[in-house]
Amino acid sequence: MIYVTRREVFAASHRLYNSEISEEENLNLYGKCSNKYGHGHNYTLEVIVAGTINPKTGYLIDLKILKDIIREEIINYVDHKHFNFDVPFMTNIIPTSENIATSFWNRLVNKLPSGKLYSVKLYETENNYVEYKGE
Amino acid sequence: MIYVTRREVFAASHRLYNSEISEEENLNLYGKCSNKYGHGHNYTLEVIVAGTINPKTGYLIDLKILKDIIREEIINYVDHKHFNFDVPFMTNIIPTSENIATSFWNRLVNKLPSGKLYSVKLYETENNYVEYKGE
Amino acid sequence: MIYVTRREVFAASHRLYNSEISEEENLNLYGKCSNKYGHGHNYTLEVIVAGTINPKTGYLIDLKILKDIIREEIINYVDHKHFNFDVPFMTNIIPTSENIATSFWNRLVNKLPSGKLYSVKLYETENNYVEYKGE
Amino acid sequence: MIYVTRREVFAASHRLYNSEISEEENLNLYGKCSNKYGHGHNYTLEVIVAGTINPKTGYLIDLKILKDIIREEIINYVDHKHFNFDVPFMTNIIPTSENIATSFWNRLVNKLPSGKLYSVKLYETENNYVEYKGE
Amino acid sequence: MIYVTRREVFAASHRLYNSEISEEENLNLYGKCSNKYGHGHNYTLEVIVAGTINPKTGYLIDLKILKDIIREEIINYVDHKHFNFDVPFMTNIIPTSENIATSFWNRLVNKLPSGKLYSVKLYETENNYVEYKGE
Amino acid sequence: MIYVTRREVFAASHRLYNSEISEEENLNLYGKCSNKYGHGHNYTLEVIVAGTINPKTGYLIDLKILKDIIREEIINYVDHKHFNFDVPFMTNIIPTSENIATSFWNRLVNKLPSGKLYSVKLYETENNYVEYKGE
Repeated sequence: MIYVTRREVFAASHRLYNSEISEEENLNLYGKCSNKYGHGHNYTLEVIVAGTINPKTGYLIDLKILKDIIREEIINYVDHKHFNFDVPFMTNIIPTSENIATSFWNRLVNKLPSGKLYSVKLYETENNYVEYKGE
Repeated sequence: MIYVTRREVFAASHRLYNSEISEEENLNLYGKCSNKYGHGHNYTLEVIVAGTINPKTGYLIDLKILKDIIREEIINYVDHKHFNFDVPFMTNIIPTSENIATSFWNRLVNKLPSGKLYSVKLYETENNYVEYKGE
Repeated sequence: MIYVTRREVFAASHRLYNSEISEEENLNLYGKCSNKYGHGHNYTLEVIVAGTINPKTGYLIDLKILKDIIREEIINYVDHKHFNFDVPFMTNIIPTSENIATSFWNRLVNKLPSGKLYSVKLYETENNYVEYKGE
Repeated sequence: MIYVTRREVFAASHRLYNSEISEEENLNLYGKCSNKYGHGHNYTLEVIVAGTINPKTGYLIDLKILKDIIREEIINYVDHKHFNFDVPFMTNIIPTSENIATSFWNRLVNKLPSGKLYSVKLYETENNYVEYKGE
Repeated sequence: MIYVTRREVFAASHRLYNSEISEEENLNLYGKCSNKYGHGHNYTLEVIVAGTINPKTGYLIDLKILKDIIREEIINYVDHKHFNFDVPFMTNIIPTSENIATSFWNRLVNKLPSGKLYSVKLYETENNYVEYKGE
Repeated sequence: MIYVTRREVFAASHRLYNSEISEEENLNLYGKCSNKYGHGHNYTLEVIVAGTINPKTGYLIDLKILKDIIREEIINYVDHKHFNFDVPFMTNIIPTSENIATSFWNRLVNKLPSGKLYSVKLYETENNYVEYKGE
């Protein structure tokens, strides 16, 4: 069993806002993260695939293929976009890092040609990140 | 002559858009950077001060004071904000890194208690940054 | 189950020294790490919390709250301090990274308002780090 | 149980090439990674050891000793070398990151004076890395 | 006057070897850097352009255009290549970082649509880099 | 003219304290940086040498030689040491980054076999650094 990771970077905006509660409650809950026009990050995404090494190639998965899958399924939808307005698969989901990571997992989990998805790590800043393993 | 640098990080949104030209020209000029709802970055700001060492303190400038000035003059205005809507000193200025850096210079240049402002460096991503020295 | 990480940085001194063995044995055991006046590091601390996402907030835990807990329980006690002299909860404990990490775990494990403590990672330098998971 | 990590960096060349298939198939499979004269990386290696803390020393393992073992068993063989020509323990093994990491594991697994080998992580670039845990 | 920087990363091999002196002298001069089959690095290249801000765009130079120029003139020639064998513009030039940086400068200096080339920085490792400003 | 940089890392303690003023003034001036037992950092040092490329070697200066000079003149004196007690060339100098950098400059300026010393950069933390160019 080997674990292979591909890292991608994208720039996006988000606003933390729960439409089912009042403005005041949102402000209490999210503070400056609920500012009206949103703010943004250079998100760093790591996708970790687990499996066995193919003896012919020496690869678990060709990282060029993994990169292309991540770009098709995720980066093209979120890079230079606003999570609250532009991303169809995040509609009605509060774009916390926790929710973004689980949404990304769902986008990728059935798309891998070899190995299986082990983890999605999402760095919002150099100080804050989340990890989801599908458990 | 010594150079002292303080680094700060903030998260903000921006949209590259010149209101004096058409939507189509904006799209031609700025590509995905002109997407309607904007996108964001974890900006890294470095402020470099030049001067001589005070023999009593061994400091050119107390970095705690420099940090406080940067926060009062800049970070409080831009962190978790949208450059196109929320930042009074950027009104009617297209928020490219070039323009943001020169605006930051203007905010700081007369506020230093010792030394003089030498450079403002602004990293938009790990691959793109600008520097302005007031020349 | 999601994992959420908060990273903090602090500067501290330590000296590796076991008072129950001779100076010579200490020197043999710890080399330059047992130099009399100590030396220091910019320690990087990562605190990882595991749990489920609260559907109302989209958070496992508000990272602002986690940051405040880490600062109250740890950073305020160790930042700009000397582990061998200044830190009450490290008295009579040799301040290796292993022992610091387990002491930090004990400070935090019962203080979290949601989720449970999963891991404490402590980077002493860019080349050396330890992780403790309470096992 | 504590986990202790030592990071080392080395510079090496490799060429991805399976001698049992045609040039054309190699090109299809590996693209520019199979260019004839090879290319290289600043590889970053992390070796993670797991075990219990020795109460006398406060160490799981002295990182100076771990560093020496990694240098003797690995770095001296691969630093400033070409994996396809210079590394005896990689003969007839396609030098993908997956195969290099498992070869490194085999070099180290029986050489530790305390604790047991938990993981070998190998970063080929800032965007690509693999991990092997001997499973 | 503003300075704009674009960073690119590429992986390449090189061997330090002066064909006009003996093997032994090469070994004396370059040590392990002259090993026969070469070794490699993840080189980091920073290209810095200086000039004035275009008021219409807020740009000195569109970084997408700068990126494309760097890729066309440099990255396509050196990425996943061996400097001693594969790079036409480095023929008969010993591929030290100093010589690579000045060669890159020559490739770029007349290709910029706006601003002028100010500096080429080349990081061979995290510990070693060179800068050339055309002086 | 080319600029060549070598980066080294060391761990040291310091206490900011001016013995010619009162305890209270020291506390006012330096805050927690004047805590009695000191604190420490992983300092990062960059030494930049300027000069012309030797056509025989392709080097301005062999970085292995520069590394050895930095270690002999600086690292051996400061690594795992306390600036206020252990470093002969810093006696009676308040160990601010400004003063450390200028002291390092003086140690190195006449020791280079080729090129001349251009700059000493000293990073105290990831957020604070100074540069001295001998002006």
